[in-house]
Amino acid sequence: MPAATEPCRDLAHLGHVEMYTPKPEESLRFFVDILGLTESGREGDSVYLRGWDDYEFHTLKLTACTTSGVGHVAFRTVSEQALERRVAELESMGRGLGWTDGDLGHGRSFRARSPDGHVFELYYDTRWYEAPDHLKPALKNQAMRYPARGCNARRLDHLNLLVADVSATREFLAQGFGMRVTEQIILDSGVEAGAWMTCTNKTYDIAFTRDNTGSSGRFHHITYAVDSREDILRAADIFLENGVFIETGPHKHAVQQTFFLYVWEPGGNRVELANAGARLMLAPDWTPIVWTEAERKKGQAWGLQTVPSFHTHGTPPV
Amino acid sequence: MPAATEPCRDLAHLGHVEMYTPKPEESLRFFVDILGLTESGREGDSVYLRGWDDYEFHTLKLTACTTSGVGHVAFRTVSEQALERRVAELESMGRGLGWTDGDLGHGRSFRARSPDGHVFELYYDTRWYEAPDHLKPALKNQAMRYPARGCNARRLDHLNLLVADVSATREFLAQGFGMRVTEQIILDSGVEAGAWMTCTNKTYDIAFTRDNTGSSGRFHHITYAVDSREDILRAADIFLENGVFIETGPHKHAVQQTFFLYVWEPGGNRVELANAGARLMLAPDWTPIVWTEAERKKGQAWGLQTVPSFHTHGTPPV
Amino acid sequence: MPAATEPCRDLAHLGHVEMYTPKPEESLRFFVDILGLTESGREGDSVYLRGWDDYEFHTLKLTACTTSGVGHVAFRTVSEQALERRVAELESMGRGLGWTDGDLGHGRSFRARSPDGHVFELYYDTRWYEAPDHLKPALKNQAMRYPARGCNARRLDHLNLLVADVSATREFLAQGFGMRVTEQIILDSGVEAGAWMTCTNKTYDIAFTRDNTGSSGRFHHITYAVDSREDILRAADIFLENGVFIETGPHKHAVQQTFFLYVWEPGGNRVELANAGARLMLAPDWTPIVWTEAERKKGQAWGLQTVPSFHTHGTPPV
Amino acid sequence: MPAATEPCRDLAHLGHVEMYTPKPEESLRFFVDILGLTESGREGDSVYLRGWDDYEFHTLKLTACTTSGVGHVAFRTVSEQALERRVAELESMGRGLGWTDGDLGHGRSFRARSPDGHVFELYYDTRWYEAPDHLKPALKNQAMRYPARGCNARRLDHLNLLVADVSATREFLAQGFGMRVTEQIILDSGVEAGAWMTCTNKTYDIAFTRDNTGSSGRFHHITYAVDSREDILRAADIFLENGVFIETGPHKHAVQQTFFLYVWEPGGNRVELANAGARLMLAPDWTPIVWTEAERKKGQAWGLQTVPSFHTHGTPPV
Repeated sequence: MPAATEPCRDLAHLGHVEMYTPKPEESLRFFVDILGLTESGREGDSVYLRGWDDYEFHTLKLTACTTSGVGHVAFRTVSEQALERRVAELESMGRGLGWTDGDLGHGRSFRARSPDGHVFELYYDTRWYEAPDHLKPALKNQAMRYPARGCNARRLDHLNLLVADVSATREFLAQGFGMRVTEQIILDSGVEAGAWMTCTNKTYDIAFTRDNTGSSGRFHHITYAVDSREDILRAADIFLENGVFIETGPHKHAVQQTFFLYVWEPGGNRVELANAGARLMLAPDWTPIVWTEAERKKGQAWGLQTVPSFHTHGTPPV
Repeated sequence: MPAATEPCRDLAHLGHVEMYTPKPEESLRFFVDILGLTESGREGDSVYLRGWDDYEFHTLKLTACTTSGVGHVAFRTVSEQALERRVAELESMGRGLGWTDGDLGHGRSFRARSPDGHVFELYYDTRWYEAPDHLKPALKNQAMRYPARGCNARRLDHLNLLVADVSATREFLAQGFGMRVTEQIILDSGVEAGAWMTCTNKTYDIAFTRDNTGSSGRFHHITYAVDSREDILRAADIFLENGVFIETGPHKHAVQQTFFLYVWEPGGNRVELANAGARLMLAPDWTPIVWTEAERKKGQAWGLQTVPSFHTHGTPPV
Repeated sequence: MPAATEPCRDLAHLGHVEMYTPKPEESLRFFVDILGLTESGREGDSVYLRGWDDYEFHTLKLTACTTSGVGHVAFRTVSEQALERRVAELESMGRGLGWTDGDLGHGRSFRARSPDGHVFELYYDTRWYEAPDHLKPALKNQAMRYPARGCNARRLDHLNLLVADVSATREFLAQGFGMRVTEQIILDSGVEAGAWMTCTNKTYDIAFTRDNTGSSGRFHHITYAVDSREDILRAADIFLENGVFIETGPHKHAVQQTFFLYVWEPGGNRVELANAGARLMLAPDWTPIVWTEAERKKGQAWGLQTVPSFHTHGTPPV
Repeated sequence: MPAATEPCRDLAHLGHVEMYTPKPEESLRFFVDILGLTESGREGDSVYLRGWDDYEFHTLKLTACTTSGVGHVAFRTVSEQALERRVAELESMGRGLGWTDGDLGHGRSFRARSPDGHVFELYYDTRWYEAPDHLKPALKNQAMRYPARGCNARRLDHLNLLVADVSATREFLAQGFGMRVTEQIILDSGVEAGAWMTCTNKTYDIAFTRDNTGSSGRFHHITYAVDSREDILRAADIFLENGVFIETGPHKHAVQQTFFLYVWEPGGNRVELANAGARLMLAPDWTPIVWTEAERKKGQAWGLQTVPSFHTHGTPPV
């Protein structure tokens, strides 16, 4: 049997997302006081943030900017060799942007540009988070003490991008990063309207859907995981109390069955809290689930219709 | 950098466990009516069972026997090539028992014996579960409809073995199967008293602790995952109502932080329901957490002392 | 201080609701297999049902009929004297319909007709549920063993009626039954569009809203309580799997803050599962909360808009 | 039928508890930062605290003192007339201590001493909590905004006293306050070892158990309610992180079926977080459940044995 049929397993996990915000102070307050992230450092126009269970220095790089949207999306590889293999592949695809000297949270990294213009980053050499004394956890197998503040977002889960051509981005991530598709939406016209891809045992680490405005390089949302659906219901109460705009949810997606809640942070970016229950993608040879146009019209799992802004609101604004 | 430093990623996940029971009818009623598993087939002295989210034909092979305990433990590989690599390694270690012709739930498999005498099995060719009409789910990305019966165990999570020599089994699983240690207990004497190993993004797929009776090849417990801690509290109510012996829990482990509940099924085997929240092992280069004797004496996360039977009760009885 | 200012405390709690269904077999299957109620008796065209924590013989009398809707609504008084006091008051109001000889689940009762035509019943002499051996609970302070079937509805919570004149029904229940208003909706026109009333420490035992069709005597929904919001999320999964129409929810009401889920049973009647968390009405001198038209337009607590059918669908159909 | 058989319904609910602490600053930090209560005022050596859903000015009066324990226990009546009736009864029993001029949180009150020496207080005239602007809730039917801090204790639920003679205190509360027994423990010797009494639809507002040290007037614990069992599991994590001593739990009581967690606050007083699910005491004629010595030896609902300190630790220390 030819080696080519073996699944690529070079990526370890989604590492971090750089988010732009035109309201840096208010966005920071949102992420720290309401969402419950913890600041681990600052440099230039950026503040580095993480959930209490994130093992790395940061999973969100919040950068002050003239507009909102996504700066770059980084994945960690399983080894230096894996990093080299991915770089070679991306170079061969003509997608490479070259190496960086690293950042506060990691060593050298390689960047590549997707067909839609999104900037992706790969790195292996990382900086493990070290909790200061007042944040040391009671249990030594935990990165940081539980904050008991706001929504207590646990760890970065995934992100979602808006793209002009779903298939092009999917092929870029499959070939360049070795990611696998787990679910897709294919319209009656044959056009692919959305794809969910994974490089772990989560059922998705990244998703992307068609940008109906025809723009490119836009951001749909970043998602932090919490431990239970009850955590998300409580988060809805907390967003309500703090005047945060709740766009839709809490409800259960039909696609991927994630229990979700979407809000907009002060900078305009969409943020999701999600819980997958005990659902994992364990099969190495999963056949992607394809959702039809008719099936999507049924709405979410329990019948909630998708809100129109979900198909139009992205960052930066058009 | 030498290729040898790359993590092995040949195993996809724990596939199934064969459990022996001297009370086959009562054990079957326990697993189906109380735990909420579903029968997918029978052959010879065995009944094949699975959780509603298990994608394969079976995750538990319940076999009538003169005694209790574990028949064999099977892992699925990520590919045929991965299977061949593991077989070559196990053969070189002198641990191979040879190929089987397969079973109701999978094709050919290779068996190996651990230093403690436990039989492990590897296979790639599997049989996907196909739900009969009355069990088809409403959402097409789910293996079977939610049963709404008993504890509604979702999917196989892990198993735990009793071994005479923890280090020997750990080294066998590391070299032979490419599994990684995430947590360990090392006593003041330097003796390794327990180890937790993973081949996925779960923090453990298998654990094993020292058999204080000096026996070998015994079974400690099998664990099914549910979606929330609340599911486990409800399960405790259901076990109580059905006269099932609750050994300990619900409580939270300090090791691995799993929320747990242990009961004994009618055949005498220990069964756990567990929930890990949103906790995952994402780091490819995790340094194992080592728990000391003093730390273990503090009991579980919230202070519950480990019940004495946890260190002595295994199957088959001595 | 005049005795007249003392709150009336003659009612103990909502006792049962008689529901009509044109599809008795399918409705019964819904209430037993899906909602998780237990049958305690049959007589004539009626089946008597109850939640596992309901202490009385029945809380739902399901009666086969040519149409859907509500037969009568019964409250238990705190004593025989309290019953006599209420009867005297209802007679003086000219609302009395006279005494009955009782039913399978209780002794003599007195009936009265509301301004909207709904039939209310009062009784003190009741029949405590006695569980047969196979349904005896493990804990002696529980009416019946936990069923572990379907949604496991725990106990009757409240009901909601459609009325042509909200104020008239509110005054009838205040004077005749001694119920207290806890929340109200009053439109800009000054018209009262809904009222929630209690006779216990629950924040409401009955609610009624304006019937936009101009009909009278119609039924809006019956509600069973479960233990947690998670129970309601799980119920949504179970309704989905069983093809039950989910009208709206799960979500949190702004009014009364109840976490809710509405479905339609096969006979067409609306059924709610609800959880109030630890919320109670403890103040004996609560000033009713008045919601304005503008406030109601904001939708439910987290922003979900009220579905149009919520204002039009009642039983029997018009 | 004689009026004497009617249940007394003069009490509205448990109002507040005055707790003594020898470590006022640390106790205050515990109740505010960890338990999540909010300060509403200070006077003399006392700080007034409340849960976010408590409608009155305070439910806990924390008073600096040379030792720990309970100052007084206050119940609100349903009316001024009800207050007068209770005072007359207590005076006739020779238990009255006389009227007070009121406190920061309420108007005049009447005090009485129980056979065990505990001081009880009755009042009707109360001060409703008025949230300052920064604590105003998003929903107008809520006393205060949800704090999203620590354990987020919702409302005062009940308290538990240690007494030398359980029957004497039970009779005092039945005759003097009109409280009803819902559950009891009666030992093989015929001695009453514990009683649970209610004046609401909660299954208990106060409990008291035999003080094995032979002391009188001691305090066992105060309990705040939260919305779900999940809230209590999360609270256990928070107590662990903050170094608060967890005495026992989380687990489910067999008596009353409450899900519980007991900790000791810095002053030495025991504090419980509890959740009753949707359980209510609705029957006006409930026959008390009597637990035998043998039944109590089975431990809690799921088998956890009662910790020895539960029978010996009270405040002040002996």
